[in-house]
Amino acid sequence: MNLVDVKKVVLTGDRPTGPLHLGHYVGSLKNRLELQESCLQYIMIADSQALTDHADDPQKIKEHVFEVLLDYLAIGIDPCKSIIFVQSLVKALPELTLYYLNLVTWNRLKHNPTVKQEILQKGFGESIPAGFMVYPISQAADITAFKAHLVPVGADQLPMIEQTNEIVRRFNALYRAPILIEVEAVVPKQGGRLPGLDGKNKMSKSLNNAIYFSDCPEVITHKVMSMYTDPQHLRVEDPGKVKGNPVFYYLDCFDPDKEKVASMKEHYSKGGLGDFQVKKHLNEILIEFLRPIYEKRLFLSKNREALVDILKQGTLQANIKAQQTLKEVRTAMGFNYW
Amino acid sequence: MNLVDVKKVVLTGDRPTGPLHLGHYVGSLKNRLELQESCLQYIMIADSQALTDHADDPQKIKEHVFEVLLDYLAIGIDPCKSIIFVQSLVKALPELTLYYLNLVTWNRLKHNPTVKQEILQKGFGESIPAGFMVYPISQAADITAFKAHLVPVGADQLPMIEQTNEIVRRFNALYRAPILIEVEAVVPKQGGRLPGLDGKNKMSKSLNNAIYFSDCPEVITHKVMSMYTDPQHLRVEDPGKVKGNPVFYYLDCFDPDKEKVASMKEHYSKGGLGDFQVKKHLNEILIEFLRPIYEKRLFLSKNREALVDILKQGTLQANIKAQQTLKEVRTAMGFNYW
Repeated sequence: MNLVDVKKVVLTGDRPTGPLHLGHYVGSLKNRLELQESCLQYIMIADSQALTDHADDPQKIKEHVFEVLLDYLAIGIDPCKSIIFVQSLVKALPELTLYYLNLVTWNRLKHNPTVKQEILQKGFGESIPAGFMVYPISQAADITAFKAHLVPVGADQLPMIEQTNEIVRRFNALYRAPILIEVEAVVPKQGGRLPGLDGKNKMSKSLNNAIYFSDCPEVITHKVMSMYTDPQHLRVEDPGKVKGNPVFYYLDCFDPDKEKVASMKEHYSKGGLGDFQVKKHLNEILIEFLRPIYEKRLFLSKNREALVDILKQGTLQANIKAQQTLKEVRTAMGFNYW
Repeated sequence: MNLVDVKKVVLTGDRPTGPLHLGHYVGSLKNRLELQESCLQYIMIADSQALTDHADDPQKIKEHVFEVLLDYLAIGIDPCKSIIFVQSLVKALPELTLYYLNLVTWNRLKHNPTVKQEILQKGFGESIPAGFMVYPISQAADITAFKAHLVPVGADQLPMIEQTNEIVRRFNALYRAPILIEVEAVVPKQGGRLPGLDGKNKMSKSLNNAIYFSDCPEVITHKVMSMYTDPQHLRVEDPGKVKGNPVFYYLDCFDPDKEKVASMKEHYSKGGLGDFQVKKHLNEILIEFLRPIYEKRLFLSKNREALVDILKQGTLQANIKAQQTLKEVRTAMGFNYW
């Protein structure tokens, strides 16, 4: 057994439908920077999955494949450590999806809690794309193709992991071959949900309340200075609320000087510390963190060829692994014709 | 433009879940023997589709892939004229299926009349495999991958063709590229449904009322002699019913001497012609037709390598064509990354 074999395998990724932001960092990217040091990490740019509710705009998805890649590289995902690949270019995945669809009942698909909630959010009405209903099974294909041990997800995604493990157990039992392995969800501590600039919702592109890795320092300053704080904190000398105040939540996440944050919170609560001062400090902290990311991103974006090379390399490695799993799956089923 | 381009393209095939019989001959194989002379005919052994309701027994499907191939070759399908291939080995098909699933609503899938009827027949109850609900979309992938102009189907399969054409129109409109072509159903004259030996239902493996190409002459004689006829025709001198009498239906299909058949029908109707005599004649006609098929089948079955070669060649050709279509589809969608 060599070292690669002992490493845990991680599958993670993003739908390329928009640029990544600080919410992604807190929710998953930070985790991935750690995981790439200790695990064999596959990071999937899920263009096929994005199509399930963006079939009318694949061009947008294509553009964001490269934007998301730039975000990854800029924050420190290292293509020598993590395997970054494009989902639709891994040819074994749709075939695995179709085999797994035979192991799941129609009723089970309908009753996936995550999908049910997403359908409401997306306002499909009566026109739910069939591909969207099927995407949890594609996810099972993604996860099992790489024999992932760990999948970092938000708590709302736990039913997807359960669906995958149901398929794993059913496949292994039906074909009497322990080919597929059950996967474990890794849920971030503290929920991993960064509130948006509006302080009301989680940070999200669609709510227009996000700070992006592609934002230049001026834009970041403007966004920070217009952040929601405690609406009752009208005068500097008034006591202010720290709880539910996103400015302090951000400081908790990004200011390494925990003592200073604690003393600012105390001061703010008692009164005498103005929002402007707190925001000014947060702005410095965020600019310090985000400026090198922004600059690295800008630099990398000028060399499209290098980006293509990274995706090609990663996709090649992903194909080798997924193809091997598909071969084992077909052999277990007895679908090896010659 | 060369000759191949002007030929119409046909897609047809069978699910390898059992041996083929005379019902298949009347319903489609006879047609295919003609079509292979004038068209570019793809014949698909639909193992993936068979899995949608036989996921628990892929071994059976695998065995029947070769049985069905033997049936094809024995009745005269010529692998130099028709392209015979294994569905699950054409790697572009699942990917096309997933793209098309995004163009169909969940409600539309549920309301496919053919699928609804098949669900009742198969007695799935509450446990309908999701893959089974999705198979009309896989069929659309099969048909469009080869840019088929014609698909020979039974009348009950017309909703499947309509589903395919809906996808074709939606794809071409959405991606503003006339890549896919609409297909035409070819429904056999007289419905193309041969009654079974029981005279009550259509010939079908599951009803145990079929004469197979793999039946030896002794078995055929036994089956013919025990066929259902007119149950009121007790004595030779009694008048007998020709209508609904499968023995005469078979003679209509297989006896080239139409005058003789007409005179036998008249004699039988008036009385004086015994069932034994009619069956004896039918037996001779069927043995004459089926014995060379049986012997060719037996001979071919001894050379497994040659069979594998035929499937490999056909599957290679099918892959080339389907891959080309997939490339066009991805380009139309803008999913060409480099």
